[in-house]
Amino acid sequence: MDDLNDLNTSISYFKEQVDNFVEKRGWNQYHTPKNLVQALNCEAGELSQLLLFKERSTDEIIKDKNLLNNIADESADVFIYLISLINALGLDLTTSFIRKMEKNEEKYHISEFNNGIYFKK
Amino acid sequence: MDDLNDLNTSISYFKEQVDNFVEKRGWNQYHTPKNLVQALNCEAGELSQLLLFKERSTDEIIKDKNLLNNIADESADVFIYLISLINALGLDLTTSFIRKMEKNEEKYHISEFNNGIYFKK
Amino acid sequence: MDDLNDLNTSISYFKEQVDNFVEKRGWNQYHTPKNLVQALNCEAGELSQLLLFKERSTDEIIKDKNLLNNIADESADVFIYLISLINALGLDLTTSFIRKMEKNEEKYHISEFNNGIYFKK
Amino acid sequence: MDDLNDLNTSISYFKEQVDNFVEKRGWNQYHTPKNLVQALNCEAGELSQLLLFKERSTDEIIKDKNLLNNIADESADVFIYLISLINALGLDLTTSFIRKMEKNEEKYHISEFNNGIYFKK
Repeated sequence: MDDLNDLNTSISYFKEQVDNFVEKRGWNQYHTPKNLVQALNCEAGELSQLLLFKERSTDEIIKDKNLLNNIADESADVFIYLISLINALGLDLTTSFIRKMEKNEEKYHISEFNNGIYFKK
Repeated sequence: MDDLNDLNTSISYFKEQVDNFVEKRGWNQYHTPKNLVQALNCEAGELSQLLLFKERSTDEIIKDKNLLNNIADESADVFIYLISLINALGLDLTTSFIRKMEKNEEKYHISEFNNGIYFKK
Repeated sequence: MDDLNDLNTSISYFKEQVDNFVEKRGWNQYHTPKNLVQALNCEAGELSQLLLFKERSTDEIIKDKNLLNNIADESADVFIYLISLINALGLDLTTSFIRKMEKNEEKYHISEFNNGIYFKK
Repeated sequence: MDDLNDLNTSISYFKEQVDNFVEKRGWNQYHTPKNLVQALNCEAGELSQLLLFKERSTDEIIKDKNLLNNIADESADVFIYLISLINALGLDLTTSFIRKMEKNEEKYHISEFNNGIYFKK
């Protein structure tokens, strides 16, 4: 399993892993969409909590192995609930992503947002 | 582009797409880890907001095309910020996922959690 | 101090207490509005996390002293950050509340929302 | 009503106003603790969303009347759900606050946190 990485692993792999984990424990009954979005929001809060108050450069964070591991873990938790939701609703994350990126391309059109200007005037 | 889906799309594709989008707009300066986790938490809140108060069955949600589209869009937003964070810190999401799932296998061991019991006594 | 309660304690009391606490520790430098809203969102996630997945009646929660105490504690944390934000921006929470309730009275007008109907058709 | 402010308004006033509002609309059925903490977390996300990415000084925010009004409104929304939760569980917010502040006094003892040091070493 240790040769799986972001280059060779498709979304369907994560969907199957999460589905299996949930199925084996009989947890589908708890995985209603409403419960999952609530849980996802909590996990996003735990992730955010790791970077409160103190401004830290990316380098500083990467060197702090303990912090970096915690961020990786909480990011995974967010991802697991996201995949659980996608599973519960039979959605295709790739399709959703592509459609949303197209909307973003229009909303933040390159002709207008090309100089590090983040906010519409 | 329309034949990309969860079966054939690896995490690296999303990383590149998001990186490109951010790069072209000169937004890397805003994409500090602290800013990204704060933004991710907000998007998770928008996703959660779509399923407040009212209990709806999965079937009901799937039939409500407008709601389902909104959930797909907000899920994509959460994913986009998650990928942005992974990019900013040079993490491998697949590795983080596998490591976290191994921890979860131990924490919620199948011998103890096998009957739809969700919570430790 | 033990005879202070919701009947006899005004918002200004909380503002002073929080201001004092922050001042004595030299934490005003961290209490920027941006940092405070991020922290508040995290605390709201911790509160939400106490009531995930399992539907519990109000009575059940009230009888579970440990859970009720945790909810009281996390509610206080949310309130403390809210008051910190109000302090940082020199706002009057009472005025903000009254103005928002007036907007809500209009948005959810009693003539339309009077039968336990929560959502506009 | 316009002479009510943080100096002369006790928590019980907010409790009554929110209770009345909810009661008149028959919304108590939706105001389960679980639903309320989920909603509160969403409102905290909306508040946080007003201060994303861009660092703004307190003065800058106070001068931006539109932004300040939005912050006041979203702060009120967070407070309204907090009061709704306190109501639903029959809690006393003042008592919860005082108890939590005592814990904080111990956790962040003045002897250790007295020089603007925010984090334990």
